[in-house]
Amino acid sequence: MKTADKILLISLDLFNTQGERNITSVDIANELDISPGNLYYHFKGKDQIINALVESYIAKMNAIPQSTDNNKAFYEYLFHALETMHLFRFLFQNIAELSQQYPAITKKMQRLSNSQRQYLREALLAQKSRGTLKGDDADIDLLLDIISLTLFQNLNYYQMQGDSLVDPNIVYRTLMTIYFSLQPYYVESEETRAIKQSILDKTLV
Amino acid sequence: MKTADKILLISLDLFNTQGERNITSVDIANELDISPGNLYYHFKGKDQIINALVESYIAKMNAIPQSTDNNKAFYEYLFHALETMHLFRFLFQNIAELSQQYPAITKKMQRLSNSQRQYLREALLAQKSRGTLKGDDADIDLLLDIISLTLFQNLNYYQMQGDSLVDPNIVYRTLMTIYFSLQPYYVESEETRAIKQSILDKTLV
Repeated sequence: MKTADKILLISLDLFNTQGERNITSVDIANELDISPGNLYYHFKGKDQIINALVESYIAKMNAIPQSTDNNKAFYEYLFHALETMHLFRFLFQNIAELSQQYPAITKKMQRLSNSQRQYLREALLAQKSRGTLKGDDADIDLLLDIISLTLFQNLNYYQMQGDSLVDPNIVYRTLMTIYFSLQPYYVESEETRAIKQSILDKTLV
Repeated sequence: MKTADKILLISLDLFNTQGERNITSVDIANELDISPGNLYYHFKGKDQIINALVESYIAKMNAIPQSTDNNKAFYEYLFHALETMHLFRFLFQNIAELSQQYPAITKKMQRLSNSQRQYLREALLAQKSRGTLKGDDADIDLLLDIISLTLFQNLNYYQMQGDSLVDPNIVYRTLMTIYFSLQPYYVESEETRAIKQSILDKTLV
């Protein structure tokens, strides 16, 4: 692995587990057993490291297939998005502080979450036009709010409750919450039953 | 107003608008036009100020009536809880950083949110036993997760979306999201229709 990649990997782990505020460039260099000068050769300070991590987060998110062809594809999208957010969880755990400190990053994150919300809307509308989801436009808007809130804030919620974020089942737990929000609007079918079962069995992907 | 109260009021405003991380004791003294020594006489550093704010937040929350007698009382509770959280929003915007920096505060906040969750559960079970809410025990658990997630994380979500947190309608917006999550489980009645209308009209309390 290249030194720059190692720096990013270690920084991500330190930010996630100890908080971005509490980690300095020197801590990162120490953890990697390299000199601060060597670290500086790759990244001119913590700002650049955070920026590179945000770029990597956005690239990973954008690489997740956004299909509206069937309901399962929608849940697969959510699964991979939740997994990616879990991997980069320090970005969500301190959104207010990060916004104040790095306004450019906030803009990028907002652009991404708007485009994700747009996909979620299209996927719900496609489910509606296939006849698997009932509800008028106002319902779709409110469902979208609940799904987005759950998607983007589940980690903060678990943390607040004192639940472990390292739990490997955390993605499925959130996925079940999202499925449950939509359930009253589903026209029951073989497809929706199979999706629900695969979430409960943790075999969706 | 006593100086100690003024210090808390100004600190809360500065933390909410500029971020707790970015505000020092000296900033607070400057804003109040008092000397750092005078501030120190009342609070021995930012830790003590934050601790006093947390105590005040908990006292306000505990003062909200927790009635399970009718569905309207449940929404009134949520309204006042949301209003209080909005007033102390810096506590929710940086929960991860605050947890790492002030573990004692996190414990207190968790104890409060657990007792609030307990009230919400009792209120839902009371709605069920009155016959106004359908659903089995698993449904109640998942509804509780969605309601708690919305209650505790709505401000982070709006912030992430770039929505203004100063919007006076923000409490009603969240209340509508919570009502909407429960709506499929309500047995429609004059009472539930009246509650929904009062949320839409912003006349609940």
